[in-house]
Amino acid sequence: MQRGFYIGRFQPYHKGHHSVVESIAADVDELVVAIGSADVSHTVRNPFTGGERHVMLTKALETVAIPTYVVPLEDIDRNAVWVSHVESLCPPFDVAYSNNPLVVQLFHEAGVEVKNPPLVNRDEYRGTDIRRQMIDGEDWTPPVPDAVETVVDRVNGVERLQRLAADDADISSQD
Amino acid sequence: MQRGFYIGRFQPYHKGHHSVVESIAADVDELVVAIGSADVSHTVRNPFTGGERHVMLTKALETVAIPTYVVPLEDIDRNAVWVSHVESLCPPFDVAYSNNPLVVQLFHEAGVEVKNPPLVNRDEYRGTDIRRQMIDGEDWTPPVPDAVETVVDRVNGVERLQRLAADDADISSQD
Amino acid sequence: MQRGFYIGRFQPYHKGHHSVVESIAADVDELVVAIGSADVSHTVRNPFTGGERHVMLTKALETVAIPTYVVPLEDIDRNAVWVSHVESLCPPFDVAYSNNPLVVQLFHEAGVEVKNPPLVNRDEYRGTDIRRQMIDGEDWTPPVPDAVETVVDRVNGVERLQRLAADDADISSQD
Amino acid sequence: MQRGFYIGRFQPYHKGHHSVVESIAADVDELVVAIGSADVSHTVRNPFTGGERHVMLTKALETVAIPTYVVPLEDIDRNAVWVSHVESLCPPFDVAYSNNPLVVQLFHEAGVEVKNPPLVNRDEYRGTDIRRQMIDGEDWTPPVPDAVETVVDRVNGVERLQRLAADDADISSQD
Amino acid sequence: MQRGFYIGRFQPYHKGHHSVVESIAADVDELVVAIGSADVSHTVRNPFTGGERHVMLTKALETVAIPTYVVPLEDIDRNAVWVSHVESLCPPFDVAYSNNPLVVQLFHEAGVEVKNPPLVNRDEYRGTDIRRQMIDGEDWTPPVPDAVETVVDRVNGVERLQRLAADDADISSQD
Amino acid sequence: MQRGFYIGRFQPYHKGHHSVVESIAADVDELVVAIGSADVSHTVRNPFTGGERHVMLTKALETVAIPTYVVPLEDIDRNAVWVSHVESLCPPFDVAYSNNPLVVQLFHEAGVEVKNPPLVNRDEYRGTDIRRQMIDGEDWTPPVPDAVETVVDRVNGVERLQRLAADDADISSQD
Repeated sequence: MQRGFYIGRFQPYHKGHHSVVESIAADVDELVVAIGSADVSHTVRNPFTGGERHVMLTKALETVAIPTYVVPLEDIDRNAVWVSHVESLCPPFDVAYSNNPLVVQLFHEAGVEVKNPPLVNRDEYRGTDIRRQMIDGEDWTPPVPDAVETVVDRVNGVERLQRLAADDADISSQD
Repeated sequence: MQRGFYIGRFQPYHKGHHSVVESIAADVDELVVAIGSADVSHTVRNPFTGGERHVMLTKALETVAIPTYVVPLEDIDRNAVWVSHVESLCPPFDVAYSNNPLVVQLFHEAGVEVKNPPLVNRDEYRGTDIRRQMIDGEDWTPPVPDAVETVVDRVNGVERLQRLAADDADISSQD
Repeated sequence: MQRGFYIGRFQPYHKGHHSVVESIAADVDELVVAIGSADVSHTVRNPFTGGERHVMLTKALETVAIPTYVVPLEDIDRNAVWVSHVESLCPPFDVAYSNNPLVVQLFHEAGVEVKNPPLVNRDEYRGTDIRRQMIDGEDWTPPVPDAVETVVDRVNGVERLQRLAADDADISSQD
Repeated sequence: MQRGFYIGRFQPYHKGHHSVVESIAADVDELVVAIGSADVSHTVRNPFTGGERHVMLTKALETVAIPTYVVPLEDIDRNAVWVSHVESLCPPFDVAYSNNPLVVQLFHEAGVEVKNPPLVNRDEYRGTDIRRQMIDGEDWTPPVPDAVETVVDRVNGVERLQRLAADDADISSQD
Repeated sequence: MQRGFYIGRFQPYHKGHHSVVESIAADVDELVVAIGSADVSHTVRNPFTGGERHVMLTKALETVAIPTYVVPLEDIDRNAVWVSHVESLCPPFDVAYSNNPLVVQLFHEAGVEVKNPPLVNRDEYRGTDIRRQMIDGEDWTPPVPDAVETVVDRVNGVERLQRLAADDADISSQD
Repeated sequence: MQRGFYIGRFQPYHKGHHSVVESIAADVDELVVAIGSADVSHTVRNPFTGGERHVMLTKALETVAIPTYVVPLEDIDRNAVWVSHVESLCPPFDVAYSNNPLVVQLFHEAGVEVKNPPLVNRDEYRGTDIRRQMIDGEDWTPPVPDAVETVVDRVNGVERLQRLAADDADISSQD
């Protein structure tokens, strides 16, 4: 039995993430999918809560052929203990999949095997682009699974993001 | 669509918890099961990590008839913001099930509907008793689902707990 | 111009506290009254929030002859930096009033003048007794200023405390 | 009885803030004025401590016609629990006044009524400009109430800010 | 080159600790001595600051035959990341010496070799006894190295501890 | 007996730092050398752990003529309590040496004597330059003491830094 690990911020979860998950799923028996910065929300870069992203993932992962575990991870802001933080909150795993240099290095130093997942349509699907389309009132739904659209709609996510992105007409309350 | 919420420390998850989950599952369409004190481990009262408990729950919940979400929750140690902490990390839910007076009161003040789950075999299944049996080398497995036994064995959980419970023969390093 | 400092948990603010405040007020020109453990609430020992205690104090201090400043202080849990924590969040003060040995020692080591306020009716007015009377459904109001009763009533404080103090009929959700 | 809520960093409190307070005071019976980032000080953007700002506000608010509560709020750095943080440390309030998009959105999602305070002389009074004038040794006092000038002088605030803004002639100790 | 690790609270450092250090020093080439709970001070059980204990140790370790490193460690309050916390703040070490069951178990699970240091005069030298003698005004100095006595005297440590241990004659300020 | 204090991030410790230390050592009887941001590591600006820097310093300070104390300090992120944080974790000191405006101002306000250490070869030795040379595969060793080179080699520090500095070829896992 081989269990894999994959982490992302998933703001929101999109088809690029999903392609990576599916390719990892072909390699392992079970997969832990961790929601990074689960405690961060209501910013332009991180509009959705950990709970909202949990629903997106759980629904979207239903079609994946192997058992998956969704794990929200609060930020710990200390690189040297990050691997222990992850390992203590996730089901035990055998191999981590990441292309992020910091994540790769931290697992490497901790003696955890790391593999690079394939790069799938990386120019086609980007969270930054999807959030920009939400802000601009464009059709942002093609790059995301249906389950994601449902969640975003239920929590009025586009409206939330548009408000957060608004120019601050008067910052007297702040300065 | 009605989504319920149920929280426990699950040290370990046992058949008493499972009976409660099944009775709640008869009432709602989906259920969020939160792992309390997910960041606490390696103590006599809380021997298992959040990740180990995540596996116990996910495997044991496979037989439940409705979709479930497992959410590890780190302690926040501030009662007045606890409900927001929970709500931000969990899928949105409509009704919380709890018999714990503090949990009931906090949800009540926050305007969240709370129901008391039925008390099932509460004298028969207790985490304290199971942990005591582990420490004493007795057969601790009857009150837990098979999946829990598998996890505890894989992480050498009984040995861990026995060591943590050992009388400290020499505390010179501590005092 | 001499400014004094006085701190308490004020769970709730009562006439014993008020007598101390009035005796200090005879000594100084202005008084800082700090709410200790302002972030702690919803426990049997600390039922009221910092905000609720802020109202109690502000209303009750209206009759004090000198200007007062009410300052909620979150716990910092590190004795060696506690004085700096207090000094940074409070208006600058010249003398601290306290009979608590730890508070006295910390101010003493930091070079802040400390005076012992007079002991006024210390057996007559105790927060512990008042909270016990609330739990037991007795008349708890004589030892508190009218403003305190108003706040407790508005937030259903007696009901809250009674619930928190309830025996946990079923802790299966916790163990 | 209607109680309002207004928050700012007040670095320092100036006549623009005061105009907003006065216009809100015409709408409500009591007003909570919260000091944001109360734990942040000794930076170019946030030179004054929470305690120093508490004095500025308390003195300047003496002329306001309604009862006010000054509440220093430490940052909590987690948007999803921010409203609970505020509500637990402030006297209960009925309506929040803010033009800050994030603050508006967070209160809105929490079901708290939010109103936009009028924009008064927003180009005339800006904290950034006042701090710049302090650094440059210009006359920074016209835009602030007299009480603010008194506090800044007592704590040698201009000297502090000028030092913090100094070019670091030698950063060898840092790098 | 073999580097060892030894941790204690050292409240205060005494001849029992020193015997353990000397016996470890016979086994290894260099030794890391970590000050546990370095951020805790001014309590009856932990009267001395991390800095005060740093001086005690550095001076007392001068007679040890091998190079030593003194490392104050703030508490992290999360067992599952404790080893990473220690490893990131200490010089890399090859073997840990401890008789504390929790410490032994955590290093064991992390794959770090652990040895039990010899039990030397464990009934003769106990921090609890020394602190009791300080409080009672007895001669507390025989069990400690001279350097420790010097530090305690310089910071008026006995007086501090006696004050902290005083019965609280009036807790009105607290309740 | 006069004890001095000097703080740096020491990423890595280099001959510029060492010259400053030696010039301070001519002024005082003992010196506390504090490792700032000891808990920060594995970033391009802060590649080395507190423990790795502890070894660099301890070895390099062996040639200094006076007793030294190496103290790793975790960041506290609150300027108003920073001096207390430092003082509680360091051996008591009489004079602080710093050219950093914030450090100077904080000690000044706390009543601690501050002196400016001489500026030695400040253009010749810079941590930023050394880290850049590591990244670029150039010879980075001339500006550092031999002990530093040994530590960096033992932990594969150059490789670590090069990986952390790598352009992120695919950030799909992050966005």
